[in-house]
Amino acid sequence: MSWQATVLTLFPEMFPGPLGLSLAGRALNEGTWSCTPHDLRPHGLGRHRAVDDTPFGGGAGMVIRADVVDAALSAVQAPADVPRVFMTPRGRPLRQRDVSRYAEGPGVVLLCGRFEGVDERVLQARNIEQVSIGDYVLSGGETAALVLLDACVRLLPGVMGSDESGVEESFSDGLLEYPHYTRPAVWDGHDVPEVLLSGNHGAIAAWRQKQAEEITRERRPDLWSAWLARREENEATAAGLSGQTRHTGV
Amino acid sequence: MSWQATVLTLFPEMFPGPLGLSLAGRALNEGTWSCTPHDLRPHGLGRHRAVDDTPFGGGAGMVIRADVVDAALSAVQAPADVPRVFMTPRGRPLRQRDVSRYAEGPGVVLLCGRFEGVDERVLQARNIEQVSIGDYVLSGGETAALVLLDACVRLLPGVMGSDESGVEESFSDGLLEYPHYTRPAVWDGHDVPEVLLSGNHGAIAAWRQKQAEEITRERRPDLWSAWLARREENEATAAGLSGQTRHTGV
Repeated sequence: MSWQATVLTLFPEMFPGPLGLSLAGRALNEGTWSCTPHDLRPHGLGRHRAVDDTPFGGGAGMVIRADVVDAALSAVQAPADVPRVFMTPRGRPLRQRDVSRYAEGPGVVLLCGRFEGVDERVLQARNIEQVSIGDYVLSGGETAALVLLDACVRLLPGVMGSDESGVEESFSDGLLEYPHYTRPAVWDGHDVPEVLLSGNHGAIAAWRQKQAEEITRERRPDLWSAWLARREENEATAAGLSGQTRHTGV
Repeated sequence: MSWQATVLTLFPEMFPGPLGLSLAGRALNEGTWSCTPHDLRPHGLGRHRAVDDTPFGGGAGMVIRADVVDAALSAVQAPADVPRVFMTPRGRPLRQRDVSRYAEGPGVVLLCGRFEGVDERVLQARNIEQVSIGDYVLSGGETAALVLLDACVRLLPGVMGSDESGVEESFSDGLLEYPHYTRPAVWDGHDVPEVLLSGNHGAIAAWRQKQAEEITRERRPDLWSAWLARREENEATAAGLSGQTRHTGV
């Protein structure tokens, strides 16, 4: 069974786009996943197939109608266990653990908005998750959907070669990754950090850990605080356990 | 002068991709911006034009060479004031204010990685900003670059119609946006919140503000804390100012 991505959009010709090439493209050709864009426009109303209308209560912009989204959702007939996801800056932030959850399931149905947004009622009534890829505003949900799919597809069985498998670790331990260096050992007058040429695996691991901690503290105070809190908790647990062991050992 | 996007990538055929359509595509055709992908491959070494090598110090994956990136950067000859940006999960998180800064400048040079990363020395020596679009891992920087460009292009003069101009507000006041509703007033048994049909502009504004605060508190505790801190600071400033006014008024 291949992993099935269905995308509800006013721009079906944007898909698979960049995901038709490279790793994702090869996996698409091999049938590891499928990408089915579904045009919202034919579900629009009237001679012009209008999909949007002005917001109740006033304000700038247009809102995509609940009935139009609902008709499109019904038309694609995705099984009930397939997550429905609306790409919106109002959503929960996408994290690597969400990506893993999507990738482990049967696929996703992604709803891409344009204009001001989508009528809230259909999002609530049809149990559509609201997900944000980051704190910036896009012209529509399509590039966000491409990002979510890119992240999922590389996790599907057989997609990544061994070359790419290490990348995962960036978020798995809660720290940003240490810096990388490759040949030449001296480039434009800049040396590689000496420890990396030492062959001392313990020293290399310690240096990399220190670098990861420093970069995280500097660039991501949010991740750094969470990591410190987790470390303290682990230390407390370890202290508690060793105390307990000592106690029962006596 | 059009806004110039140059993208250093192993997959130049991914650009402009989805940005060749819709708003961004129209702006591209009208010359508001340009999108020039530049292939890293011809800057590679040897008969196979290798762009990467194994990491010093060991570990999984391959690292893109400093000399290859540097040669590509030299070849594109971007003016010194154009930001060089490497798309990487190790970077500073992209925010709407960064997008505005890029959009107000002459353009960007985006470096898209593949494999494990890029030799750190060229990032430091050539003053390349490291930017992350979110806490998830992609197969490469290309879909991230499309997101960054999408966000920038919609801010270029003349690109957005009045229809889309309201969207901006999502992050400008530090809160997520309130929910939207449009016709029909009753859909599938679900009513629109009554206040939105009241015509009472004050009540509508108050309801929307309350919704925005509740959604932000629920979905984004990080933004909510920052917003509360800012509000407290403003109140303190206002109290200080009014005290001062009273004092000078006496």
